[in-house]
Amino acid sequence: MELHVTGDGTPWRDRFAQRTERMTSSAIRELLKLTSDPEIISFGGGLPAPEVFPIEQIRAAADRVLDEHGKAALQYSTTEGYLPLRELLVRHMARYGIVVGPENVIITTGAQQALDLLGKLFINSGDRILTEEPTYLGALQAFTGYQARYVPVPIDDDGMRMDLLEEQLRTGPKFLYVLPNFQNPGGVTLSLERRLRLVELASHYGVPIVEDAPYGQLRYRGEHLPPLVKLDAEYHGNGHGLPFHGDVIYLGTMSKTLAPGLRIGWVVAPEEVVSKLVQMKQGADLHSSTFDQMVAYEAARGGFLDRHVKVIRKVHGERLGVMLQALERHFPEEAKWTRPEGGLFLWVTLPEGFDSRRLFDEALKEKVAFVPGTPFFPNGGGERTLRLNFSYSTPEVIEEGIRRLGGVVARRMAGRLVAV
Amino acid sequence: MELHVTGDGTPWRDRFAQRTERMTSSAIRELLKLTSDPEIISFGGGLPAPEVFPIEQIRAAADRVLDEHGKAALQYSTTEGYLPLRELLVRHMARYGIVVGPENVIITTGAQQALDLLGKLFINSGDRILTEEPTYLGALQAFTGYQARYVPVPIDDDGMRMDLLEEQLRTGPKFLYVLPNFQNPGGVTLSLERRLRLVELASHYGVPIVEDAPYGQLRYRGEHLPPLVKLDAEYHGNGHGLPFHGDVIYLGTMSKTLAPGLRIGWVVAPEEVVSKLVQMKQGADLHSSTFDQMVAYEAARGGFLDRHVKVIRKVHGERLGVMLQALERHFPEEAKWTRPEGGLFLWVTLPEGFDSRRLFDEALKEKVAFVPGTPFFPNGGGERTLRLNFSYSTPEVIEEGIRRLGGVVARRMAGRLVAV
Repeated sequence: MELHVTGDGTPWRDRFAQRTERMTSSAIRELLKLTSDPEIISFGGGLPAPEVFPIEQIRAAADRVLDEHGKAALQYSTTEGYLPLRELLVRHMARYGIVVGPENVIITTGAQQALDLLGKLFINSGDRILTEEPTYLGALQAFTGYQARYVPVPIDDDGMRMDLLEEQLRTGPKFLYVLPNFQNPGGVTLSLERRLRLVELASHYGVPIVEDAPYGQLRYRGEHLPPLVKLDAEYHGNGHGLPFHGDVIYLGTMSKTLAPGLRIGWVVAPEEVVSKLVQMKQGADLHSSTFDQMVAYEAARGGFLDRHVKVIRKVHGERLGVMLQALERHFPEEAKWTRPEGGLFLWVTLPEGFDSRRLFDEALKEKVAFVPGTPFFPNGGGERTLRLNFSYSTPEVIEEGIRRLGGVVARRMAGRLVAV
Repeated sequence: MELHVTGDGTPWRDRFAQRTERMTSSAIRELLKLTSDPEIISFGGGLPAPEVFPIEQIRAAADRVLDEHGKAALQYSTTEGYLPLRELLVRHMARYGIVVGPENVIITTGAQQALDLLGKLFINSGDRILTEEPTYLGALQAFTGYQARYVPVPIDDDGMRMDLLEEQLRTGPKFLYVLPNFQNPGGVTLSLERRLRLVELASHYGVPIVEDAPYGQLRYRGEHLPPLVKLDAEYHGNGHGLPFHGDVIYLGTMSKTLAPGLRIGWVVAPEEVVSKLVQMKQGADLHSSTFDQMVAYEAARGGFLDRHVKVIRKVHGERLGVMLQALERHFPEEAKWTRPEGGLFLWVTLPEGFDSRRLFDEALKEKVAFVPGTPFFPNGGGERTLRLNFSYSTPEVIEEGIRRLGGVVARRMAGRLVAV
């Protein structure tokens, strides 16, 4: 309880300053800012290649929507989202073995809002959330807003380590948050064997899984692996039955397959969970843009999304290859990095003694940016790690940026050797 | 702390059901659903007249945005919002005496998100929020999500009653939430004298004001009154100085002046508050639709918004007049209603003994809907009140709907008399 103040003046501002002084500006935010300086080569943000945005398709879709459904497109609409779009997503997901109905889908203002609404629905102050370590820092930001604590499980080249999972499940986490494909920030993919084990263990301990799949279709090499939501349904012997009663809450987004600027994400969950998420969303923003939902539907339907994803795969895949080659050429032998099969990011571990935050400052002087690894660690750590985005920059820029960054790393290594 | 469960099965679903059973579906949600049944004449939702949506202007704007800035419009963007749009809003607001810079403005996903972010930033569990009684139920929904308690101050025909305000300010509320113009749901406008007193008292008690102004420009008769944010600046002797350091946080929206489907709202606040709201919003949805922000800017700039608001005023004002006349004709003498000078709603108080929830059920049988008043009362009450929207339906439909509703009211009155 704060005392009220009876004197003149503006004491609320002092209280406000006091109460919020510990909130520091987040890493994502600072990074999105950097990408707007055209001088800087940014491997920071998670931006898709803008060269492949389907501008003409979106324009044709917008025209059609306004021609045929103008009043509806500009009016308020229902909180759960535009039904034809939810039905389209249901059809798409069915091809990946996710058998649900439109009543299991709620459209969100990007997948970030899905994380926020799940936090609001599930997390009470002090609740434990089980995550990969490192994990997506936007999820940490959303969950921390509801005073979550974290029980992290380290990843290796095959994703979350199953030998360390059970101990953390025993702490009674509210849910388990995992990015099985081309993980952000690690770039690694959870193996099939581990997926099966994860589903089994989570079920055994009665812990729901939040499966975040923003890059699900952005695989550039290797074989598609089944989503956890499918494996969970099979584990419980109801792989193809409706109504959907799975233990996995699945998050999707059109940000990487159509365009992030439209802010279209979605959640798949049992109907009783969707209905509570709808109530949360109503208080949060009533509904996502009616216009954008209808435009996304018009643009995506008729098979366009499938054709377009192939184009994205080609462009992003090429850029990934260029970055991997540039790393071989310009980075010292002692550095290690992951070799993703898809997604937008790869993950670098520098030799012992490196501090990637200091490296960041030096790299900025050379006009190249990345994300230091520490913010991705829920409970701290990762001082000598960093995340590189390979989708946003053109091949020539990637080569130049990695050359510059390799130079900074090499100089620091030389300096360190001299210091020794 | 919940115990973890080590047996097989899905105990999280039981815990989930237990924990959420007290969350009941909200009134807004049920009402938006009703408006989608074309058979029903709905005075329920707060929908603007779709006939005046600027469909052609939006289409031309969308085409121009995609032609000239396609890559930027479809890409991720900054959390605070599209700078040219914020600058346009700053110019617009300056005409109403609100002197701020773009650094004082954050774009939100509709004004509903502004309420949610303010709740997240200001409200700790159990905090008191001072509101009008009745007040906007979407605000109650947002604030209640953060476990707010309420200290309500009744309204009369001149808005919030100043003779009852001071006592409630003494309880130390976290902020004071008020809709000074054409209040939702009351339809009443806070008089100039009370505005000055409100600013003085809030300042004296050190309580910030959240001024919600969704209908600010939708005045159909009477004289424009200065916003609280202007009066507060003048009260503190810095009416025209930057940087902005007011005690009033002002909420605006383009939902009623351009189109609600685009979900464009904004907050005006001192820079340190905006910077914290930006952090909140980042976790909530990263940013509002880039495309919609750019389209809204393109559509609104060059004076279009001013011309368009005149059209809306004419159409809405006519509908208000039709509803007032229909009420005179079809409602019993014993019923009372407010006579708004703008906005979207008027407020009916039925004779003693009426229960507007029961009336709602009977009215639905006659295919006419409204919002029973109780959900607008933070701490209960208002059983014989109801809210009517006059902007959505055409004049003919309004006449017919009020005729039906008046019939239901008259029959209940007759029944009541018989019962006596």
